[in-house]
Amino acid sequence: MKVKVGIIGATGYAGKELIRLLLRHPGIEIVSLSAKLPGNTSSISPIFPEFKGIIDLPCINFEEAASIAKIVDLVFLALPHTVSMKIVPEFLESGKKVIDLSADFRLHDAAIYEQWYNVQHSCPKAINEAVYGLPELYREEIKKAGLIANPGCYPTSVILGIVPLLKEGLVDTNHIIVNSVSGVSGVGREPSLKAHFPERNESFAAYSVGSHRHIPEIEQELGKLGRQEVKITFVTHLAPMDRGILSTIYLQLKKEIDLKNLLSLYNEFYSSCPFVRIREEFPETKWVTTTNYCDISLKEDKRTGQVIVLSSLDNLIKGASGQAVQNMNLMYGFEETLGIR
Amino acid sequence: MKVKVGIIGATGYAGKELIRLLLRHPGIEIVSLSAKLPGNTSSISPIFPEFKGIIDLPCINFEEAASIAKIVDLVFLALPHTVSMKIVPEFLESGKKVIDLSADFRLHDAAIYEQWYNVQHSCPKAINEAVYGLPELYREEIKKAGLIANPGCYPTSVILGIVPLLKEGLVDTNHIIVNSVSGVSGVGREPSLKAHFPERNESFAAYSVGSHRHIPEIEQELGKLGRQEVKITFVTHLAPMDRGILSTIYLQLKKEIDLKNLLSLYNEFYSSCPFVRIREEFPETKWVTTTNYCDISLKEDKRTGQVIVLSSLDNLIKGASGQAVQNMNLMYGFEETLGIR
Amino acid sequence: MKVKVGIIGATGYAGKELIRLLLRHPGIEIVSLSAKLPGNTSSISPIFPEFKGIIDLPCINFEEAASIAKIVDLVFLALPHTVSMKIVPEFLESGKKVIDLSADFRLHDAAIYEQWYNVQHSCPKAINEAVYGLPELYREEIKKAGLIANPGCYPTSVILGIVPLLKEGLVDTNHIIVNSVSGVSGVGREPSLKAHFPERNESFAAYSVGSHRHIPEIEQELGKLGRQEVKITFVTHLAPMDRGILSTIYLQLKKEIDLKNLLSLYNEFYSSCPFVRIREEFPETKWVTTTNYCDISLKEDKRTGQVIVLSSLDNLIKGASGQAVQNMNLMYGFEETLGIR
Amino acid sequence: MKVKVGIIGATGYAGKELIRLLLRHPGIEIVSLSAKLPGNTSSISPIFPEFKGIIDLPCINFEEAASIAKIVDLVFLALPHTVSMKIVPEFLESGKKVIDLSADFRLHDAAIYEQWYNVQHSCPKAINEAVYGLPELYREEIKKAGLIANPGCYPTSVILGIVPLLKEGLVDTNHIIVNSVSGVSGVGREPSLKAHFPERNESFAAYSVGSHRHIPEIEQELGKLGRQEVKITFVTHLAPMDRGILSTIYLQLKKEIDLKNLLSLYNEFYSSCPFVRIREEFPETKWVTTTNYCDISLKEDKRTGQVIVLSSLDNLIKGASGQAVQNMNLMYGFEETLGIR
Repeated sequence: MKVKVGIIGATGYAGKELIRLLLRHPGIEIVSLSAKLPGNTSSISPIFPEFKGIIDLPCINFEEAASIAKIVDLVFLALPHTVSMKIVPEFLESGKKVIDLSADFRLHDAAIYEQWYNVQHSCPKAINEAVYGLPELYREEIKKAGLIANPGCYPTSVILGIVPLLKEGLVDTNHIIVNSVSGVSGVGREPSLKAHFPERNESFAAYSVGSHRHIPEIEQELGKLGRQEVKITFVTHLAPMDRGILSTIYLQLKKEIDLKNLLSLYNEFYSSCPFVRIREEFPETKWVTTTNYCDISLKEDKRTGQVIVLSSLDNLIKGASGQAVQNMNLMYGFEETLGIR
Repeated sequence: MKVKVGIIGATGYAGKELIRLLLRHPGIEIVSLSAKLPGNTSSISPIFPEFKGIIDLPCINFEEAASIAKIVDLVFLALPHTVSMKIVPEFLESGKKVIDLSADFRLHDAAIYEQWYNVQHSCPKAINEAVYGLPELYREEIKKAGLIANPGCYPTSVILGIVPLLKEGLVDTNHIIVNSVSGVSGVGREPSLKAHFPERNESFAAYSVGSHRHIPEIEQELGKLGRQEVKITFVTHLAPMDRGILSTIYLQLKKEIDLKNLLSLYNEFYSSCPFVRIREEFPETKWVTTTNYCDISLKEDKRTGQVIVLSSLDNLIKGASGQAVQNMNLMYGFEETLGIR
Repeated sequence: MKVKVGIIGATGYAGKELIRLLLRHPGIEIVSLSAKLPGNTSSISPIFPEFKGIIDLPCINFEEAASIAKIVDLVFLALPHTVSMKIVPEFLESGKKVIDLSADFRLHDAAIYEQWYNVQHSCPKAINEAVYGLPELYREEIKKAGLIANPGCYPTSVILGIVPLLKEGLVDTNHIIVNSVSGVSGVGREPSLKAHFPERNESFAAYSVGSHRHIPEIEQELGKLGRQEVKITFVTHLAPMDRGILSTIYLQLKKEIDLKNLLSLYNEFYSSCPFVRIREEFPETKWVTTTNYCDISLKEDKRTGQVIVLSSLDNLIKGASGQAVQNMNLMYGFEETLGIR
Repeated sequence: MKVKVGIIGATGYAGKELIRLLLRHPGIEIVSLSAKLPGNTSSISPIFPEFKGIIDLPCINFEEAASIAKIVDLVFLALPHTVSMKIVPEFLESGKKVIDLSADFRLHDAAIYEQWYNVQHSCPKAINEAVYGLPELYREEIKKAGLIANPGCYPTSVILGIVPLLKEGLVDTNHIIVNSVSGVSGVGREPSLKAHFPERNESFAAYSVGSHRHIPEIEQELGKLGRQEVKITFVTHLAPMDRGILSTIYLQLKKEIDLKNLLSLYNEFYSSCPFVRIREEFPETKWVTTTNYCDISLKEDKRTGQVIVLSSLDNLIKGASGQAVQNMNLMYGFEETLGIR
């Protein structure tokens, strides 16, 4: 018996990747697609011409999305933040599992959510049920979860890059600098001047300098793992390419530690994690494009006492839809890598 | 009477930009081109088909380049490091002015040069004559110089971005983090797998992590201006685009200072500098492409006490050939912006 | 006394290039900018951050654009088709010169205009006054013109590529195939899914197959010059790059003619045209980027009796704003290349 | 029992795609990799860092490649032309099956091969055994073949685009114009100035105008299917993107036929072909990137009596390695789509 899944928010880039990945997955069946549509229900393939001859499911209008609860076992929500939290309770009450790709259930403290997203949380109760869906840290909790808060793309790269050092107490938590770069699919599928080809192409720029909404999510997780408050300086940038994130992370070491030991530490920490690769070469985003890998390498700068961590992933896969499938695999007892290797 | 100039190293990207810029300059005449050529002397336009009908000068083989000394007033050297230092003395002895775009005369201390470039300096005497050609800092010295060490592309963006704060003693000089990104023309015109289109395109990666040869140049200049030793953590990256550098600089403030005052400080510092623009928006590299501007903006992160400086320029213009022309303008009493605005 | 010019439609890509080119032109002064704006009159530099410190003119709202007639000698209209024809009469009646970059006055026959643009022509009288602004063909008429219909980007590349052969009667006018490719700036500055970076990047596609509105303009000019009706098969494509057009033109030769003679024919035809370069290598669009050149090369295919013409230009310069300045130069007795070389 | 396969020429782009596709294929096992290497045998993952943790097979030096014959059932040759024909006989004599991705066995007439490739064919006997591996035309022959000549990337797109019309005798075979555009991976993995990022990026250009070596292969197949000699005018271009081919094909219709009937003709012709999609929209190369599809659409130009066929595929998949796997599936009785859907 295959698991019956639905996707709400099927017409964005994360939704598209979910469809693509789930079609290859032998243990599930996509039974329903839904999205905000300009007009009536439409087949998905005029929206994504790539899917012609591959999937012909209708994409029903978002207003009727809740009705999906009757026919699915699990629903993926690839919706903008604030929209997810309105629809999640209905699925939970029907006893359905939910993997939410938005930010709505990532922060354990509704007050912090409200401070960064400028909106009241409409469903604080479900926050407590939600498990932060980073399998490398929370594999056991995920297996038993009913609601997964799928991590943000930047946070996945940053948390995986810092955790082993932080856990060992080796870095000064007052001086964490994170410089992240993303491909343009990160801004979504809605046309804008910012993402208009002749503006974005051949240009490199920072945005949300020190104010990106992924900051509290990163600080929450690092704080938990490091058992103390952590504040990061975080600057995000756009590079003229479709996909990929590279986070260059600057950590002040409390004591000297050489590269060999750093690599051992990371290799050991991730020894049972099939999607984290510790590398000796500095990673290129292209090496992980369309894969669920997070590639990490390290370099110590003896002159300044810093260690530089380079952490790279595909923002739409390990940074979104691939990680969501990885979480689903854990929730349903599939092999962790099924359909995403 | 026009100034007679020669370009040695005319077939790389910096050489090409020099030709393009100098052709528009009303005060000079290009009288000689030279480069390492696979065969005999050739016209420049088969090498750069863009120049057909614009410039038909022969490009003579590098071996005969020294003979140029007889016919020029000024020579631009767009050569690899270690090659420049061998040819510079000949021009100086003939009483000719030299603008050297290589790294050979940028470091005042031959020992530091030898440590970073792994080669003995063959002309340490000339190091003392050389003026570091950053007009925003050394305008008066440049006017009188016979040998200009034209700054590196990254150092120009970094030094201009940090100096005003450093000079005021407002930042912790032990925690300077510089994250720089360059377009691919920065690696030069020699084909390589690293710069092969299908490898480089759609990819973002770090290189020379903590070990880039521009580090001692930046530290020398910041140390002089800050009147104390400065060490920086410096990581360089390649973005899939032709041109442009964005340096994202992280500085720990010694005391709180708000954005308005930061902007005033920078505006005042650069008030007489026609090619530095202090902006309120975060700069895009595309805004300065093919121009001699360095665009700078600032943002304070109150949560962490950092100030983030964004500094952007075209690596081939303000980061190389445009700055060389700016230096030439100062040396010959032309208006500083002549031919490069 | 400098010529006083205004630009209406200053906020699109053609307007931007006009500003950039005209700022370098020693014989004119930009006295007015105007465009459809979301709000009130604004300075141009927040709209195009590149212009900070270079031009600070206000950009007045399009509704008040007609008032410009009082202060300018010449106005450039960089407006969508159908908008130009409503505003042109006012300027002509005030005795002002107009260079219209839209399609509104390119077709001599209002009926054909109406058939291809699906709208009635509101100013058919002015059609007769308009000169088709292709200096290589109509230099003398342009000098005396009051209203210039500045050619389309594709037509400039196609007409210049075909005319010498057509005029000699050497090609079968029933079998002209034109395959053109443009950079994405050709679709304008209005955001759309079609030009959204993650959709357009890394993709190549045809559009308006056999139905592009530049067809009648090309056929009109080729018919006039060939003294017989000409019909072309014309397919346009978008390549993932900012700028540049390459037209690959397939012509059936009526009799054999070798490459040397073809090149002579073209060289002679364009001997007094400073912006057409006949090349022996196949042209790359990058060679003409940001220049006013049209580069042309030829190759005969002896196996099939076809001659293939490759014609390349920058769609925003020789295909729009550069050509407009070239026309202005002719109208005011400036050197033809002034400010655009 | 899995089929044991080897790949010779594993370090080019076609080899890389073969590895990637075959790793996903449930019916085979990769037992050997080989390639021209600068030094000794090496693991494949330092060559393609993407494969770290996925495949660790050694890549043996090409000189010892023949020894592979003992351990494989089938070998894929992803080698330059003229190299394949030297190694093929050894495998055939050992009774092993060969899928050759080079051009060496595509042309049935050794004289034509020698004329276009300027080299004598060293193994004309095997030419007769070779089956042209285009499953849409030769499915039954492929099932029984011992040697597959895997078609070129351009020919696959062109032949599939023309055949249905040609077979019905509907087009003038004297006026076939094919305008093809490819991504840069088509030039291979060897660095060159032509494919150097700053040269290739942001540029569009034609190459091998009327002289591309894929011409005889296309003419051979069209001639066979149309039962008469066919000559095509063929121009190839490079677009600044990694992958994808779009062929825009211009055919003169002998009699009028409307779009609806054209689409019916194509749909019927390819009704049993899982990898050809006849579309109503003009195809974008991005829709087929990383897939084994060939997308085709049509448009009649009533004004000129031409029909324009647009045919799009991924040059490395349906144009090379995916098609090779499709052929393998047929040869071994696997489902045609196994591992490549």
